[in-house]
Amino acid sequence: MKRVCVVGCGSIGSLYAAHLARVTEVWAFVRREEHASALNREGLRVSGKHEFRVSLKATNRPDDLPDCDLAIVATKATQVGESISRVGKRFDRGAVISAQNGLGSEEIIAAHTRGQVIRGTTFMSGTRHGDTHVQYELDTATWLGPFEPRSTPYGLVEEAARLIASSGLEAEALPDARPAQWSKLIFNASVNAVSALTGLPHSLHFADESKFAALGHLLHELIDEGKRVAAAAAIELREDPWTMNKIGALTNHPTSMLYDIRHQLPTEIEFLSGAIAREAVRAGVDAPLHTALYRLLKAREVSWGFADENRAVLAQREAP
Amino acid sequence: MKRVCVVGCGSIGSLYAAHLARVTEVWAFVRREEHASALNREGLRVSGKHEFRVSLKATNRPDDLPDCDLAIVATKATQVGESISRVGKRFDRGAVISAQNGLGSEEIIAAHTRGQVIRGTTFMSGTRHGDTHVQYELDTATWLGPFEPRSTPYGLVEEAARLIASSGLEAEALPDARPAQWSKLIFNASVNAVSALTGLPHSLHFADESKFAALGHLLHELIDEGKRVAAAAAIELREDPWTMNKIGALTNHPTSMLYDIRHQLPTEIEFLSGAIAREAVRAGVDAPLHTALYRLLKAREVSWGFADENRAVLAQREAP
Repeated sequence: MKRVCVVGCGSIGSLYAAHLARVTEVWAFVRREEHASALNREGLRVSGKHEFRVSLKATNRPDDLPDCDLAIVATKATQVGESISRVGKRFDRGAVISAQNGLGSEEIIAAHTRGQVIRGTTFMSGTRHGDTHVQYELDTATWLGPFEPRSTPYGLVEEAARLIASSGLEAEALPDARPAQWSKLIFNASVNAVSALTGLPHSLHFADESKFAALGHLLHELIDEGKRVAAAAAIELREDPWTMNKIGALTNHPTSMLYDIRHQLPTEIEFLSGAIAREAVRAGVDAPLHTALYRLLKAREVSWGFADENRAVLAQREAP
Repeated sequence: MKRVCVVGCGSIGSLYAAHLARVTEVWAFVRREEHASALNREGLRVSGKHEFRVSLKATNRPDDLPDCDLAIVATKATQVGESISRVGKRFDRGAVISAQNGLGSEEIIAAHTRGQVIRGTTFMSGTRHGDTHVQYELDTATWLGPFEPRSTPYGLVEEAARLIASSGLEAEALPDARPAQWSKLIFNASVNAVSALTGLPHSLHFADESKFAALGHLLHELIDEGKRVAAAAAIELREDPWTMNKIGALTNHPTSMLYDIRHQLPTEIEFLSGAIAREAVRAGVDAPLHTALYRLLKAREVSWGFADENRAVLAQREAP
């Protein structure tokens, strides 16, 4: 794996690109031309858990991108389709890791490349301080496994995990990555949806089960419901999402979906609550709470356009 | 019933006060002194379905209020306790109608007066254009019935209904007002909570059951769940809340809870979703969806203070 492409350089993508650029040739494929120029000119600076600066190649033009042995798709789940459709061909003879939240990105990637798809789930985190500076915060693992429908060779998964580990990040190959992915899915779907609907960052309220009205009861029920869906889908969880919630509740972290809702950006709801709701239907079990939160947040996205429609109507009425 | 007091003059209270002042002596008890002065000086103007102007007495001082034969408490449910605790004594020898949304106001009123309590549910609606002008919109009925724990004499309920009807408003006495109150409760709890969480006014989305993600499925499930709680509490509904929802969905009406959420005002959540959640516990049935929405909206109220705490912390950090 002599040439790696990182698709999308938000905080997670920047962490992969910077670390890997220390051990192999790295191309960053990004959306904005200024972003590519800045990366070519200044390279990437990492601060926090690791401190270094590195140079790498970057482009926003698919034609500039050479064929790569490994790609890591690190965009938001909502942007996977748009990005991989532009560069999927460059990875036809390589492997492509999905590093998104939730379920469903692997299928989108597989539809746009003949390369081997690797199911990735990452728990590392960082804060992006600009196009060329990322702060490394949680140095937790990226778990990699085969994408079952395409029978990805396990040797390839191990090779990708070794490469990432050699760059200084934590990575682990697993014969089956779904238990890890589902643990994070259930945790993420529950916490993100509740955070987005209540306006609360991930805080102690999420683990509070004192009074009848306490929010922790709802989190517990969402997580239990998610576990029942996992069991019906024959997935054995790797970690307990309730424990993950209790730890996260100490951080006051504003979740990504809360950020999206505040800025009226498309959320990852289809890949989180929506994925659990659909998997429940597929497995023939009920998931009333995740399905309810899914519908509430889909409607919340609709409300932004609704307000605009109403403003347009009002503007017309007020016109002379 | 020669002297009537209307407690709280929002749109509903103003409609009662203005109409009743045409047939009997009316006192308006309000919170703000300017409001009382304006009513004493200018009286009340009604426009819309009815058009008239009438004079009445008003005060914000409990000591100025004489004993009354009938009171109509028309504040928001969240303000019943504060208002009735100040003037409940004036109604000790009379009757007091609760006109709030949801369940629980009767009990609060009963705790602060020795007067007979009448369970009221109103479907009329209006728009307040200022302290002395209200527009009468929906001319639907107010249903009145005994407050069972106190065995309110039915003759008194009929007398109150006759008085209100004689003033030009629709009113009906019922031997049991709970079927009407619960119909409106289930409708109101479902529509208000969903509207507040999604940011959508009561619109066609609420009755849309086309796709899997459609919001109408959630409304239908909430209403069905509410009906199961009513059945377990041995209440036979007077109207079908799902039909009420379909009709309301044509109005694009911004619900009162959506208004409260937008302005960070205390919502009636305890009296709506919270009431259904607690009644379910009492009746020994599950109400997971209403309970979830109750907890989400309680947490939404918490988030306003949370943001303030965080702003305070940030302000301290930024201080020199």
